[in-house]
Amino acid sequence: MDWAVLLAGGSGTRFWPLSSPRRPKQLLPLAGDVPTAIATARAVEPLVSRKRILVVAGADLAPKLAAALDLPPEQILVEPKAASTAPALAWATATALARDPSATLLSMHADWYLADPERFRRAADAALEAARMDDALVTVGVVPTRVEPGYGHIVPGEIIRGPLYRVARFVEKPPRPEAESLTASGALWNSGLFAWTAGRFLDELRQHAPEVSGPMMRLAEGDVAAFFDEVSPVAIDVALFERSERVIMLRGDFPWDDVGNWEAIARVRPADAEGNVLRGPVSAVDAARSIAWSDGTPVVLAGVKDVVVVAANGRILVLDRSRAGDMKEVLESLPPDVRTLE
Amino acid sequence: MDWAVLLAGGSGTRFWPLSSPRRPKQLLPLAGDVPTAIATARAVEPLVSRKRILVVAGADLAPKLAAALDLPPEQILVEPKAASTAPALAWATATALARDPSATLLSMHADWYLADPERFRRAADAALEAARMDDALVTVGVVPTRVEPGYGHIVPGEIIRGPLYRVARFVEKPPRPEAESLTASGALWNSGLFAWTAGRFLDELRQHAPEVSGPMMRLAEGDVAAFFDEVSPVAIDVALFERSERVIMLRGDFPWDDVGNWEAIARVRPADAEGNVLRGPVSAVDAARSIAWSDGTPVVLAGVKDVVVVAANGRILVLDRSRAGDMKEVLESLPPDVRTLE
Repeated sequence: MDWAVLLAGGSGTRFWPLSSPRRPKQLLPLAGDVPTAIATARAVEPLVSRKRILVVAGADLAPKLAAALDLPPEQILVEPKAASTAPALAWATATALARDPSATLLSMHADWYLADPERFRRAADAALEAARMDDALVTVGVVPTRVEPGYGHIVPGEIIRGPLYRVARFVEKPPRPEAESLTASGALWNSGLFAWTAGRFLDELRQHAPEVSGPMMRLAEGDVAAFFDEVSPVAIDVALFERSERVIMLRGDFPWDDVGNWEAIARVRPADAEGNVLRGPVSAVDAARSIAWSDGTPVVLAGVKDVVVVAANGRILVLDRSRAGDMKEVLESLPPDVRTLE
Repeated sequence: MDWAVLLAGGSGTRFWPLSSPRRPKQLLPLAGDVPTAIATARAVEPLVSRKRILVVAGADLAPKLAAALDLPPEQILVEPKAASTAPALAWATATALARDPSATLLSMHADWYLADPERFRRAADAALEAARMDDALVTVGVVPTRVEPGYGHIVPGEIIRGPLYRVARFVEKPPRPEAESLTASGALWNSGLFAWTAGRFLDELRQHAPEVSGPMMRLAEGDVAAFFDEVSPVAIDVALFERSERVIMLRGDFPWDDVGNWEAIARVRPADAEGNVLRGPVSAVDAARSIAWSDGTPVVLAGVKDVVVVAANGRILVLDRSRAGDMKEVLESLPPDVRTLE
């Protein structure tokens, strides 16, 4: 049967100071009026029964996500520590297999914005079907809607049939000129939407990523902490997709956004006539192309252009919009007592 | 004897949201670490005895100024309503005259920044002396340090002696091209620093401004409210300096700033290496030429240039620096519940 894994990792620094340990990105209504994780779960639910949605999250976030998504504890996999995506997906796949010998899994992130859930589901369904039919690890390449150096890219190889291709190569976050030529020549975005049968995934993992599959013995013993202590914190792209011969790509043509930083808010929320995207008690006077978010304190933008203003959790951020991708570096420059949120 | 009048009027909107009815501009440490009014009073005190400093202010501000300046009630003239500068100065001059038949008055505003008090006092002393010697209304023209369309200008006429000139003409806030040519040709700023003997002032007022001098009968009767009800709310420049034949100008070469809006903060406070002027818990990361003031909430400026950020009194203002002069219009565009501060 079809299963879905929602990965809910990340430190959430990119939405500082709105995202905080108490209320990380997945619990914020970044793109609409409901928390991102709920919107993502709703998008997949018509395709995959709620009973077969697994969530992988850290100890801080897990209980909040369980409550927000109304899922029972056995569907929430609580990581004892952060260890990238390969260990998380290995655990989730093993968990699904233990409950369903014919499990086919769809892997996604709990913080995407899927503007057209129906088109998303058609691509996800096709990926699940290809995983079974072709006994393959399927990665969904998303048709780009802009040049985006911030994303990994997939160069498609020969066509298999319909929207299915071999992969010529993966390109990690390319510099802008390379991203431009990649996009112009038909490369796709490496979205992180994957599908596989549990059996094929675990076979490939044993063959290509013993640093992940070896410690899985601990999972069989019921010792999750030992698994996370012993496993290598490696990304699934590196552990499997760049190594396995059984990778195929499904060309996915649906609106997809990973809502990666404040700049993304301008793509996923409606703007006023001047291109401002405002949420909360914000007044704009001759402001343009600006993003402002307040959790309560009235904010006035006057005459400014291309700024991001966030008033939340007792902090105020005023950021040039072109620097939205640099939040990690900005935060590292701050005094710890300013940076640290409760 | 010499008297000083500190005028403390104005609605203080230009420093919104830092200035508020509870704490207007004169009580804020805009230029240094003490409230503006205290700094101004300290600048004049070595010249004029504290016992002969009069303050004219509205009912809201008067008790706070009295406390801040530690002046007794008889030196605080509480305006029952705002009525521009001519009525305020007529009242102050009549008050001084009643207590001192030889009163000579220096008129100034309680919110100036005087970076070099000693040079200021030399000019003020010379103005008081000229008022007596020449039996004249003396206006101090300040030597400009920049082109400033926001100030009235004085075109000097023939020289009388030393720094004293006749006035060729007054120019109200000129457009920038005119301000440039005025400044290039030696015009001075109309600072609002005046001196006169009480006798000459009242004579000139009777002759040129009956709309102010007429109602002064009410002051003699002890009915201040009636005076303010009947008097015309006219500026002293219009009521006297543009009408009287007995006006002379003293050329004053001392640093003077009326700290008129947020832009002025960059002139009167020290900047960091990138030209940022920051007060309160503000962190700047790759910010430049920006002004930020926080009364407690930590503010982070990242990558922005030429912005003014103010977090105070439960409001957050993010303003393009070039628009600092437009605060009145900005505030008029805001919903009343956002604009109104306690």
